[in-house]
Amino acid sequence: MAKRIVDARRKGDDVVVAVSAMGDTTDELLDLASQVSPIPAPRELDMLLSSGERISMALLAMAINSMGFEARSFTGSQAGMITDSSHGAARIVDVTPVRVREALDEGAIVIVAGFQGFSRDTRDITTLGRGGSDTTAVALAAALNADVCEIYSDVDGIFTADPRVVPNARKLTTVTAEEMLELAANGAKVLYIRAVEYARRHGVMIHARSTFSSGVGTYVLGAGMTAPDHQEGEEMEEPIVTGVATDLSQAKITVVGVPDVPGKAADIFKIVAKSGANVDMIVQNVSAAATGRTDISFTLPKAEASTALRALAGEQTEVGFDKLVHDDQIGKLSVVGAGMRTHSGVSATLFEALSTTGVNIEMISTSEIRISVVVRGDDLAGAARVVHAAYGLDGDTEAVVYAGTGR
Amino acid sequence: MAKRIVDARRKGDDVVVAVSAMGDTTDELLDLASQVSPIPAPRELDMLLSSGERISMALLAMAINSMGFEARSFTGSQAGMITDSSHGAARIVDVTPVRVREALDEGAIVIVAGFQGFSRDTRDITTLGRGGSDTTAVALAAALNADVCEIYSDVDGIFTADPRVVPNARKLTTVTAEEMLELAANGAKVLYIRAVEYARRHGVMIHARSTFSSGVGTYVLGAGMTAPDHQEGEEMEEPIVTGVATDLSQAKITVVGVPDVPGKAADIFKIVAKSGANVDMIVQNVSAAATGRTDISFTLPKAEASTALRALAGEQTEVGFDKLVHDDQIGKLSVVGAGMRTHSGVSATLFEALSTTGVNIEMISTSEIRISVVVRGDDLAGAARVVHAAYGLDGDTEAVVYAGTGR
Repeated sequence: MAKRIVDARRKGDDVVVAVSAMGDTTDELLDLASQVSPIPAPRELDMLLSSGERISMALLAMAINSMGFEARSFTGSQAGMITDSSHGAARIVDVTPVRVREALDEGAIVIVAGFQGFSRDTRDITTLGRGGSDTTAVALAAALNADVCEIYSDVDGIFTADPRVVPNARKLTTVTAEEMLELAANGAKVLYIRAVEYARRHGVMIHARSTFSSGVGTYVLGAGMTAPDHQEGEEMEEPIVTGVATDLSQAKITVVGVPDVPGKAADIFKIVAKSGANVDMIVQNVSAAATGRTDISFTLPKAEASTALRALAGEQTEVGFDKLVHDDQIGKLSVVGAGMRTHSGVSATLFEALSTTGVNIEMISTSEIRISVVVRGDDLAGAARVVHAAYGLDGDTEAVVYAGTGR
Repeated sequence: MAKRIVDARRKGDDVVVAVSAMGDTTDELLDLASQVSPIPAPRELDMLLSSGERISMALLAMAINSMGFEARSFTGSQAGMITDSSHGAARIVDVTPVRVREALDEGAIVIVAGFQGFSRDTRDITTLGRGGSDTTAVALAAALNADVCEIYSDVDGIFTADPRVVPNARKLTTVTAEEMLELAANGAKVLYIRAVEYARRHGVMIHARSTFSSGVGTYVLGAGMTAPDHQEGEEMEEPIVTGVATDLSQAKITVVGVPDVPGKAADIFKIVAKSGANVDMIVQNVSAAATGRTDISFTLPKAEASTALRALAGEQTEVGFDKLVHDDQIGKLSVVGAGMRTHSGVSATLFEALSTTGVNIEMISTSEIRISVVVRGDDLAGAARVVHAAYGLDGDTEAVVYAGTGR
């Protein structure tokens, strides 16, 4: 890492680095915490966890210093990462990187502890939660008007599909932030939605690339952005479909025999929401006139299914449905492309491709630039390959696949 | 620890705890640093090391919380430990424990990261160096006007001699700060001079006690202090001699054949001082009129001897001495007692006791309340036992000895 950072500095760029904790540090600290307390106080847990980045940033700064370059490390609070006071999942409310700016002006390389900040109200140390380090990087890039925010992981960039599912997926040189958000929200694991969303809102260009290769990765472009020069000439025309995302992490719950009277759907999803579950797709069958009852199906993360089921069962008589059906053998396939806005027939291609392989579509949902279908989990990989080919996304070569990113 | 702290809180006391890093944490962090850099930048080293106390204080706070008491942890900077900017050995310049006071007023137990502070000038995190955690505790006790500052180690308190050297040494119920400073400076390892000195200057009462027993330890009393009630009646009269300290950590250097002209001693000790060595005792023999030359001997920590020798050898011709003699087989025995100020004959008792055992005295130095002699290292333990008895310090029982304190 130090070598890469120094190389970038040598090229004449100001460099600010946001680091995560090393290896299993965070898990080890969580272990220690669970040994002394079943439910550790969130404030103290943040105090504990924030030491992980402290260690890695100080070590990285030392390594850079020992290569003859000046590096200065800053904690979240020293770097001006101001958050609200919701420990463990703090939201960034302001970024005032005064000291970072000073250090850069003095020619130093700046190392910032990712994942952490401090609450202006309580003056306590906070952590940002899942995807926190990426978000720190993007937030600093925005506050410092950086040319680009490079986010390193163990994959070469964003692919037209998960190379582990579709072997001849192609690496994309660019993808729009909107597309990236849809891909990430529908199974692509390379970037965190939160970081991409922050980048989109604040006009930060993300360059998703690999820790293990120096090659160009994928540029995530916001409105009006163009990738650096060496990208010129590529993708003259906006592709209709940019990628195919697959997701096996969801479950389906069907509420059977719901009285077909106004407000019932609202009741059901109020209950589910209160259980803390995040509903994704919803389908309501046409009511059978004879019975005056209908079925409502929705998908949600597998981990949240049991809580939602318990919540619904508790209100069965009030809502007046017949029974609940739980199905955790589903897979979601999503086709994403900004070109959908201007091209018709995109869905037709999808349905045709699926029908030729005899894959049954159980649910459908669409956004402006996405079509998602729920199929049997066992059919997902095969369906993805067929659809990937149908939209002409197949590359000539097989993509290099590293060990899956830990994310 | 949590249990002890909670018990203290139950008794109705406000409790502030200064913690060190756990076990080998600091050594492990130093290891990591040495892996990335031969000479790590001091600023980054402090950033790294300060994470050790962060971990232990957060865990301790959690443990206390899980026992149903509110605990809040604060970093050195949050606790207002303001230092100068000399990383690795920062001096405390001010203590502004505003947040600590707030937390106490709200009924919380406060855990503060020992050993660390922050520089008001550079706004960087600093560490206090050797004895840092004890000093943090004393400094907070002073700033908060605490009734007492309890310093925990693996021994029961301050003894009339090192129980590992003098088996029937007695534990002292009280000792004056001046005596403690002399004892610590002359081999007693229980308390750090720095912490005791800070306590003396700011009128903090230290209670040195054991982590492994709940018994009363030793109270270190500053001017005008009296130990808590349960000490009443004891030691009606100030003892002439409070304790016997032994020290095997020093070496002796003799500069042989120094021209007996004004300024030569000054030259020698300028050279030694420049080498960074801390000279303790100095003895200059009466010059032999015939030769017009004299010998100058001094003691210093063994670790610093080689550097001092090299420095002196380099200037041999300039100073014009004949040769250097290095002796690291010496032992220092010190008799300490505030009563010496008002009693005569103390040294007579010492010399007599030593002569009866045939121990040869090589050097002598005295302070207002201390007499130190240098003897052969092999003679030290025996000499200490005889002297300890001669001053009537022997107890009836053998002192309990734990594994020597790591300090």
